[in-house]
Amino acid sequence: MSSGRRTIRLVVEYDGTPFSGWQVQEGVGAPPTVQGALEEALWGLCRERIRVRGASRTDAGVHARGQVVAFETERPNIPAVGFERGLRRFLPPEIAVRRADEAQLGWDPRRSSRGKRYRYTIWNDRTPTALDRNYSWWVRSPLDPNRMLEAGRALLGTHDFEAFRAVGCVARHAVRTLYRVDVRPETGSRLLVEVVGNAFVRNMVRIIAGTLMEVGAGRRSSGAVTDALLSGQRSDAGMTAPACGLCLDEVIYDDRLPPRPQDDSDLAEEAEDSKK
Amino acid sequence: MSSGRRTIRLVVEYDGTPFSGWQVQEGVGAPPTVQGALEEALWGLCRERIRVRGASRTDAGVHARGQVVAFETERPNIPAVGFERGLRRFLPPEIAVRRADEAQLGWDPRRSSRGKRYRYTIWNDRTPTALDRNYSWWVRSPLDPNRMLEAGRALLGTHDFEAFRAVGCVARHAVRTLYRVDVRPETGSRLLVEVVGNAFVRNMVRIIAGTLMEVGAGRRSSGAVTDALLSGQRSDAGMTAPACGLCLDEVIYDDRLPPRPQDDSDLAEEAEDSKK
Repeated sequence: MSSGRRTIRLVVEYDGTPFSGWQVQEGVGAPPTVQGALEEALWGLCRERIRVRGASRTDAGVHARGQVVAFETERPNIPAVGFERGLRRFLPPEIAVRRADEAQLGWDPRRSSRGKRYRYTIWNDRTPTALDRNYSWWVRSPLDPNRMLEAGRALLGTHDFEAFRAVGCVARHAVRTLYRVDVRPETGSRLLVEVVGNAFVRNMVRIIAGTLMEVGAGRRSSGAVTDALLSGQRSDAGMTAPACGLCLDEVIYDDRLPPRPQDDSDLAEEAEDSKK
Repeated sequence: MSSGRRTIRLVVEYDGTPFSGWQVQEGVGAPPTVQGALEEALWGLCRERIRVRGASRTDAGVHARGQVVAFETERPNIPAVGFERGLRRFLPPEIAVRRADEAQLGWDPRRSSRGKRYRYTIWNDRTPTALDRNYSWWVRSPLDPNRMLEAGRALLGTHDFEAFRAVGCVARHAVRTLYRVDVRPETGSRLLVEVVGNAFVRNMVRIIAGTLMEVGAGRRSSGAVTDALLSGQRSDAGMTAPACGLCLDEVIYDDRLPPRPQDDSDLAEEAEDSKK
């Protein structure tokens, strides 16, 4: 029976509003987390104590449409697709398993990934939104998307994103590669900032969104982005945009993106890499 | 001071999830409604007992991006735009005042309207959604949007929508005019049904959405819509789609739509007309 050990991969969507982020916090009375809720649901379904691995450790209030999760189970009698339906009974409505399939034994969703696509939503209007209140950042000042797009171009490619990381980030360095920084108006008063990169230091997308917002509002020059990249000073970048506007849309594994470097230092750093 | 009586018009967005619909229910321990929350907020801001009038009496769980509301106030010292900011302090985050301006004294948002635009969102996927769970109807069977669109065409124009009204609807008749019935896929697994009409009987949009869903799933022929219009039998139309998928996007006042007939019978009926 124990020879039936295997790895299951899930694509998970969640509304981050009620959670204290992805990562389980140990101890009595620990706040609810997405990882914790998934592990409890797996206990309900499989009666096994299972630890799940996520591709990205999203912060409190951050959402996901395409978080990728993997875990090992000893249960041979649940087909992979059975986890889609089976976990539903044990999960709160804020978490939905969108897909489930078999992966190679021990497969790791973070190390195997080639990159991630994040979306940051700004509600750019004189008045607030009720329906999008938990899924956007309300910015009253009129923003110029073209200025933001132009400033965002300076972020493309491989740079040291030292100025775009949270003060508490413990990654060994902040060299990352961005493949896309797009800014586009959507229906209503929504303004989307979409970012695709090979990996991210802590709060990187939120600091990019905050910096581009300040450029779009005319509070910073579009050259400010390049200045911040060169100086590496956190204070040269903009504010950290609030968590609720951020959504992990997709983790990318296929050849749309080149493979990531996998030398020793990169692997060591990965442990903290993907905190948002 | 009392000569300063005037009418204020608001455009209001709300997340209908926590409310028992638009309309105030009287009595001790009455459940929360959008109208009630607006009237309480007006009391907080103006210290007047104000009754507000809405263009549409949305049902419990139904959302709005563009509900239109009017009320009279004696307070001369609040500019119209002051209601945008002022009410914010007294409203729950599920209700947002998007615009405020002055209207002609006694202006009525329902009788003055030429029509309304509703959107019904179906989440058409094998698995549920977490982020859209309160704003869509989860339908597992694969739907064919082209079949739905074709069936929807039969609803265009002026018809007796007797088969498309709730059993409890007390409108004197169900003759209404639809100007648009559109069905289109959106990002993710969303399928939108958009309907524009001069007025609606109770549950009309939700029964249209339920009927088109059944056609799209192949459970009804596309001729079923015409059959239901002709027979006037509720049982010949489809199920009533759940409230959470429905959103009042816009109330239309300008000349994009022709004026509505305003004879006596029409006015009498208006009292129940716009319940959704």
